[in-house]
Amino acid sequence: MYKTSRYTFPMKKCFCVVCVVLMLLSASWLRAQEPIDFVNPFIGTTNFGTTNPGAVCPNGLMSVVPFNVMGSETNKYDKDARWWSTPYEYYNKFFTGFSHVNLSGVGCPELGSLLLMPTCGELNVDYKEYGSAYRDEAASPGYYTNILTKYNIKTEVSATPRTSIARFTFPAGKSHILMNLGEGLTNESGATLRRVNDREIEGSKLLGTFCYNPQAVFPIYFVMRVSKSPAQIGYWKKQRPMAGVEAEWDKDNGKYKLYTRYGKEMSGDDVGAFFTFDTQSGEQIEVQIGVSFVSIANARENLDKEQSGFNFEKVKADARKQWNEELSKIEVEGGTHDDKVVFYTALYHILIHPNILQDVNGQYPVMESDQIKTAKGDRYTVFSLWDTYRNVHQFLSLVYPEKQMAMVNTMIDMYKEHGWLPKWELYGRETLTMEGDPSIPVITDTWLRGLRDFDIDTAYEAMIKSATTPGKDNLMRPDNDDYLGKGYVPLREQYDNSVSHALEYYIADFALSQLAESLGKKDDARLFHDRSLGYKNYYCKEFGTLRPILPDGSFYSPFNPRQGENFEPNPGFHEGSAWNYTFYVPHDIPGLTKLMGGKKPFIDKLQSVFDEGLYDPANEPDIAYPYLFSQFKGEEWRTQKEVNRLLKKYFKNQPDGIPGNDDTGTMSAWAVFSMMGFYPDCPGLPRYTLTSPLFDRITIHLDPKYYKQKEIIIETERPSSDAIFIDRVDQNDKKIKGYFITHDELTQNGPIKFVLKK
Amino acid sequence: MYKTSRYTFPMKKCFCVVCVVLMLLSASWLRAQEPIDFVNPFIGTTNFGTTNPGAVCPNGLMSVVPFNVMGSETNKYDKDARWWSTPYEYYNKFFTGFSHVNLSGVGCPELGSLLLMPTCGELNVDYKEYGSAYRDEAASPGYYTNILTKYNIKTEVSATPRTSIARFTFPAGKSHILMNLGEGLTNESGATLRRVNDREIEGSKLLGTFCYNPQAVFPIYFVMRVSKSPAQIGYWKKQRPMAGVEAEWDKDNGKYKLYTRYGKEMSGDDVGAFFTFDTQSGEQIEVQIGVSFVSIANARENLDKEQSGFNFEKVKADARKQWNEELSKIEVEGGTHDDKVVFYTALYHILIHPNILQDVNGQYPVMESDQIKTAKGDRYTVFSLWDTYRNVHQFLSLVYPEKQMAMVNTMIDMYKEHGWLPKWELYGRETLTMEGDPSIPVITDTWLRGLRDFDIDTAYEAMIKSATTPGKDNLMRPDNDDYLGKGYVPLREQYDNSVSHALEYYIADFALSQLAESLGKKDDARLFHDRSLGYKNYYCKEFGTLRPILPDGSFYSPFNPRQGENFEPNPGFHEGSAWNYTFYVPHDIPGLTKLMGGKKPFIDKLQSVFDEGLYDPANEPDIAYPYLFSQFKGEEWRTQKEVNRLLKKYFKNQPDGIPGNDDTGTMSAWAVFSMMGFYPDCPGLPRYTLTSPLFDRITIHLDPKYYKQKEIIIETERPSSDAIFIDRVDQNDKKIKGYFITHDELTQNGPIKFVLKK
Repeated sequence: MYKTSRYTFPMKKCFCVVCVVLMLLSASWLRAQEPIDFVNPFIGTTNFGTTNPGAVCPNGLMSVVPFNVMGSETNKYDKDARWWSTPYEYYNKFFTGFSHVNLSGVGCPELGSLLLMPTCGELNVDYKEYGSAYRDEAASPGYYTNILTKYNIKTEVSATPRTSIARFTFPAGKSHILMNLGEGLTNESGATLRRVNDREIEGSKLLGTFCYNPQAVFPIYFVMRVSKSPAQIGYWKKQRPMAGVEAEWDKDNGKYKLYTRYGKEMSGDDVGAFFTFDTQSGEQIEVQIGVSFVSIANARENLDKEQSGFNFEKVKADARKQWNEELSKIEVEGGTHDDKVVFYTALYHILIHPNILQDVNGQYPVMESDQIKTAKGDRYTVFSLWDTYRNVHQFLSLVYPEKQMAMVNTMIDMYKEHGWLPKWELYGRETLTMEGDPSIPVITDTWLRGLRDFDIDTAYEAMIKSATTPGKDNLMRPDNDDYLGKGYVPLREQYDNSVSHALEYYIADFALSQLAESLGKKDDARLFHDRSLGYKNYYCKEFGTLRPILPDGSFYSPFNPRQGENFEPNPGFHEGSAWNYTFYVPHDIPGLTKLMGGKKPFIDKLQSVFDEGLYDPANEPDIAYPYLFSQFKGEEWRTQKEVNRLLKKYFKNQPDGIPGNDDTGTMSAWAVFSMMGFYPDCPGLPRYTLTSPLFDRITIHLDPKYYKQKEIIIETERPSSDAIFIDRVDQNDKKIKGYFITHDELTQNGPIKFVLKK
Repeated sequence: MYKTSRYTFPMKKCFCVVCVVLMLLSASWLRAQEPIDFVNPFIGTTNFGTTNPGAVCPNGLMSVVPFNVMGSETNKYDKDARWWSTPYEYYNKFFTGFSHVNLSGVGCPELGSLLLMPTCGELNVDYKEYGSAYRDEAASPGYYTNILTKYNIKTEVSATPRTSIARFTFPAGKSHILMNLGEGLTNESGATLRRVNDREIEGSKLLGTFCYNPQAVFPIYFVMRVSKSPAQIGYWKKQRPMAGVEAEWDKDNGKYKLYTRYGKEMSGDDVGAFFTFDTQSGEQIEVQIGVSFVSIANARENLDKEQSGFNFEKVKADARKQWNEELSKIEVEGGTHDDKVVFYTALYHILIHPNILQDVNGQYPVMESDQIKTAKGDRYTVFSLWDTYRNVHQFLSLVYPEKQMAMVNTMIDMYKEHGWLPKWELYGRETLTMEGDPSIPVITDTWLRGLRDFDIDTAYEAMIKSATTPGKDNLMRPDNDDYLGKGYVPLREQYDNSVSHALEYYIADFALSQLAESLGKKDDARLFHDRSLGYKNYYCKEFGTLRPILPDGSFYSPFNPRQGENFEPNPGFHEGSAWNYTFYVPHDIPGLTKLMGGKKPFIDKLQSVFDEGLYDPANEPDIAYPYLFSQFKGEEWRTQKEVNRLLKKYFKNQPDGIPGNDDTGTMSAWAVFSMMGFYPDCPGLPRYTLTSPLFDRITIHLDPKYYKQKEIIIETERPSSDAIFIDRVDQNDKKIKGYFITHDELTQNGPIKFVLKK
C-alpha cells in the first residue's frame, strides 16, 4: 500500500542514483499525475520557512507532525536553546514523537503538543533518551512516514479534519506507545489525563502564551485510543525536585516517576501515559487521537464521527482525496516540473490556515470567553491577519470563496463575541501579535470583490469602533489618540514600532474609506481617506525614506534607514528597516511619488531597494514592492523582471524553498499569484497588477455559487523559456490596456492570453 | 457567638494573669462543663505528637487544619527541611492556610493539601510571601480560630463529616481568598482545577507516596464555594524555568504566573485559584469545601447534602454536638482538672482515625483499584494497624462497638477487593508501612470479644492466606519462606528489621490460633500456636535479649542491645533497640520467663528497662511492658507504679502532652485505658490487666446493641491522692482474684470497685 513519493525527499540521508532510477520506474511515477502529486511537503521545512511535512487535511484542525526539535545535540536547532517556532526542521535528526495540532509557517512557538512516540525495549519515558534518529522519511498531503533507526519501527500518520491516526510497525519484543503531555512547542505547561479503559485515555493540556502573550491561553482536549489491548498501561510524571532529608527518602526525586498501579486523574507540568505491548515482528498497532477545543466529550464525538474503527488506509485515502479536490481548483500546464511542485506546494500551504475550529457537532469556544456556542457553518481560527490580509484572503476570495465567506463571518462573529475584530487570533484568543487593524482591509476587500453573504452593518460598526475608539480602550489601535490627533504616531518608546503601527492604520483607513464609499457613506469615505494620507508626515527628504517622528514633531535622530535588517531592533519599525516600509503606502503611490520628487527618483529608489539588497523577501511589509513599478508607464518590465527573479531565487523545490516564515501561507500566496501572472498589491482594492505567468495554461475553476463564469483561463505564449516580459495581454481576444485587471474583469470577462517576449 | 475556651491555649504568645482572671469569670467557665469542654486540641501538637488543633468531626473524612510548617525561617520546623509528618506544629509561627483532609498522629508526611488562605492588599500568590504570623489562636472539637496579624483577618473553621466551612472576617479594602493546590504535606504533586462559576471551583489533586511508597497514590476531588461574588477570579501556576532566549521573552519564567482571563481547566504541579473581593471593615466571607475520593460530582453532592447554604454557626454547633455525644460515652468524676483534659483529649484523638471514606451516597474507591463501589454501612480508611491493633480496636470494641464492627467489615471487604487484609491502608492504598500481619489480631480480638456481625469464614480464609502463602507472593509476610522453614526470620540485609518482622508474625499466629480454637479448628490452633513460640530462637542468653540471627543460624555480631534508640538504624529491629522488643511476646510471658531463668531475673530485667531508660514510651513495641509485671504474683504493684509514673510524666495538659507520634490514637488509647484502670496487653486475648484508675468514678455507657449491661461503672476509693496502689478490686461486691479481668466479665458482671492504698 505504501509508496514512496518522488516529491518527498525520502532519502535525504541516503540519497543515491539507484534509488532515483528505481523510483522513476515505479508505478507511482508512471501513473497520471494529479495536483497532489506535485506537493512536496518538505518545502519550507528549513531556512525558517516553519512549514512542516506533517499530515493534515485542507483547513483541518488536526495536524500530525514529526517533532524533531528537542532532546539532542544531534539536532542543529533546539526549541529550548533559541527562538524556535516550528515542530519540525528538515536538517534536525532526533525524532521525539508526533505532535498533534500544529501551526504551519508562523514565527512564534505554539501548539505542537500531545507527543505520540513508539519505542521498543525497556520502558523509558525521558524524551532525551527515548528519541531516535530516523530514515526513509516521506510525505504527501495527509500522510507522513519514517523509520526510527533506534528501534527499527516504521511510523506512518494520517489525519481527518479533527482526528489523527498513526500506524506503527514494530519489531518483535516489548514495544511501547507513549503519549507525552509534558513537552511540546508551546511554552505553556500543565495537563491532566485519565484512563478510560486499557485502550483509551482522555485529557486536556493547556496551550498558549503565543508570542509570549501571557494571557492568551486555551486548553486542548483529547481522546486517544490504541488498536490493541496493552500488556501494561501506566502514567509518568516528572517529580519536583526536593532537597535534604525528603530527597534522600524519595527515590524518584527530580526524575520521571512511573505510576503502574494508578489509573485515575494524573495532572502535572510534565505527565504522560504509556502503553506496553508484546509485539510480533512486523506487528502493526494503530493509534487514534481525537481533539477538541471545547471538551473531552466533543473530542470523543469527533473521533467517533470522523473515524469508524481503525482503518489507516481509509483515513489516508480520504485525506488524499480531499487535498486533490482542493488543489484541482487550479490546473496548470507547462512550466518546469519544479515550477509545478513549487506552485502546488504553495497552494497546499495556503490551505492550511486559517483552519476550522468547530467540532463535528458545531460547537466552538467563544472568542475570549469560557463560553461554548454552536456555529452555523465553519468557524475558523488561526488568523495571522497582519500577514494574510495582504494576499491570502484575496486569493481565497477568488479561488475558495466559500472558505473566505466563512472566515469573514467568523471574524464578524468574533466581534460580536469579544467586541473587536481579530488581529492575530489563535484558538479563541486575541494574541495581539504584530500591529494594525487588518480585519478592515480583509472584510472590505471581500465585500468589494462581490462576496457579500455577511452582515456588513455589523462589520462596518466594528471597523468604525476600532478606527475611532480612544487609544486606552482600543485593542486594535492602542496609539489611536496620537494617530487621531496628529495624523501619525510619534515614537514614545525606543522600540515601539510607531511608524509601522501608523502605516497599518493608514492602509486600514484607506480600506475603510473604500468600503464607506461603496456603502454610500460619503463623509466617512472622505474622513478615512484623508487619514490614510497621514503617512506623508513620516517622509524625510534628507534620507528619502519614512522616518520616525518624536513627540515634539521632529524626526528621530540619529537615523539609519538600513537599521532593522535581520530582525535587529529598529526604532519606529517592526521587523524591518525603513526601506522595508517606505514604499508601503500601496493606496497612494502617486502621493508618495510626488513626495519623492516624481517618477524617476521613485523608480530609481525602488530599483535600488532591489539592487542594493534592501529588499526583504521574507517579511510582509515590502512583498508587494515589485508590483509598484507597474504603476508607472514603461516601467512595468521591472515588475516582471523582479518577480521572475524573486520567484526563481526564493521559491524552490527544496526544503529551503520559502524565503522565510511562510506566515500561514502569505509567502505561498505571493508565489501562487505571481506564478499565475497577477497580484493584488493593494489590500482593499479589488484589483490585480499583471506580471508574466510561469505556466503556459492556467485554469482556475470558479465556484458557481459566487461566480457566473465557470473558470478563468490564462494562456501564455512564450517564444522561449527566457521570454519573461509581457508583450501584450488580451482578454477574450481584446487587448487589456495597462497592467491592471479588476477582480470583476478577471472573473467575468473571459479567457486571458499573455504574449511574452524576451 | 465565639467564646475563647480555657483549654485551647488561645494566648500562647501573650499569656497574662489578667486574661486568666477574666477567663475564670467568663460565662463559659461558669456553665456546666460537658466532656467536650475538657478537650484541649493542642495536646500533642509539639514534641512530634503530630496531632493538630484542626476542626474535624468524630471519624470524619474532612479535617481543617491550620497549616504552619512551610515558607518561613520563623518556623522552627519546616516540612521541606527535615522529616516532617504533621501540618501543624505548636511552636511554629508562619501560617500559610488551612489544609483540608489531614492525618492525625502519624509519622510520615501525607495529605494536608487544598490550602485555603485569606489575604489582603495586593494579590500575592507566593506562600513564602502571603503567609502570616497569627495570634489569638483557639480551638475546640470541630472549631479552630486565629487572627492573622499581617492582615488583621480573623479566621474560623469548622467541619461536617465530609465538608468544611471557613469564615474569614476581613478589614476594609481589597481582600483575597486563595486555594493553593501546589503545596501541602504530601510529597505527591499535580492538580487540576476548573471554574464552575464565579463562586465555585472544582478539581482534583493527587495525594500519596505515604512513607515514600511510590505507587500508593490516590486523588482527592473537591468543590469549593465562596459566599460572595468576587470582583475578580483567576488562577495561578508556577512556571517551569526556561533558559536562554526563551527565558528572556517570558516575563513569568520560573515565577507564579497569574491567569486573569482564562477560566477552563488549569492543571500543573503548582497551581491555585484566587478570588478577589472589595470588603468592608469586618465583612465576613465564608468558604465551603466538599471533598470526595470518588469524584467531583460526589464532592459536590457531599457539600450539598451536608451543608445547606452558608451557615457557619450551624456547622460548628453540629460538630460540637457530635463530639459531645461521642465523648459522653465515658463519664469520669474525680481526678484533677488536667487529668480530665488529658483523658477526654485522648478519647478525642482515638476518635479521629480510622475515618469514614464513603460519600453521602455510599460510594467509595475500591481497595487498590480504580473501581467505585457502594458501601452498605460506614467504609473506613486510615488503618495504621501496626499501631492500632495493640489497643485502639480493643477500645473501640468496648466503647464504640458499632464503629469497630464497621471497621472489621471494611477490612474484610478490602480482602475481598484486593486479596489481602490491610496492613497500613490509606485511602484505598496498601502502603505496606511497618511490618507484620496486624489484621489478624484485630479481627480475632473483635470476634473473641463477642462482636461477630461479620463474615468470619472469609476473614479466616484471608488470615490463612497470609499465614501460609509463600513469601514472594505474600504482601503481608514477605519473609514467610524463612519464617515457615526456620521458625524465624534471619537477617539477610543490614536493616531488614527481621526480628521485628518475626515478632509480628508470632503475635499474629498466636491470635490466629486463638481464633482457630474458637472456631473448633483444633489442628490449625495447634499449628499456629506452635509457630507463635518461634520467638525463642532469638533469645540470646549472653545478652539476655532477643538478638538477630544470621542465615547460617548464628547470632548477628557485633551486637549492642541498646542500638536503635532515637530512631538510629538497628540491624534486625525496626524503630527501636533490642530492649524495646525483647519482652514483646505478650502471648507467652511464661515461656519468655523460663528462657530468662525464671521470675526474678525476668522481673529484674523488666524493671531495669524502666530504671535504666531503656523503655521508649513513644513507640508501640514496648508500650505494654508495664503491664507485664502483673503476670507475676506480688509484682503487680510495679505495673501500678510504672503506669502511674508514665501517665504523669508523658501525658499532660500541654502541647507536648503526648510522648511521641500519637499513631492515630494508639498512644491516646494507652492513656485512656491506663487512666481507667485496665489495659488489653495481649492483642487477640480478650482480657485486660488491671491497674489503679486515676478517676474516682468512671461510667462507660455500653451500646445496647452489643452489650446487655447498660454501663460499666468503675468506682475507686483512694485514701489520699498519692494512694496509687491497688489494695483490692471488687466486682458486684465480690473480690476479683488476681489482676486480670476478661472482656465478658468487665461488660457483664456489674460495677467494679477499686480500693487503693499508698
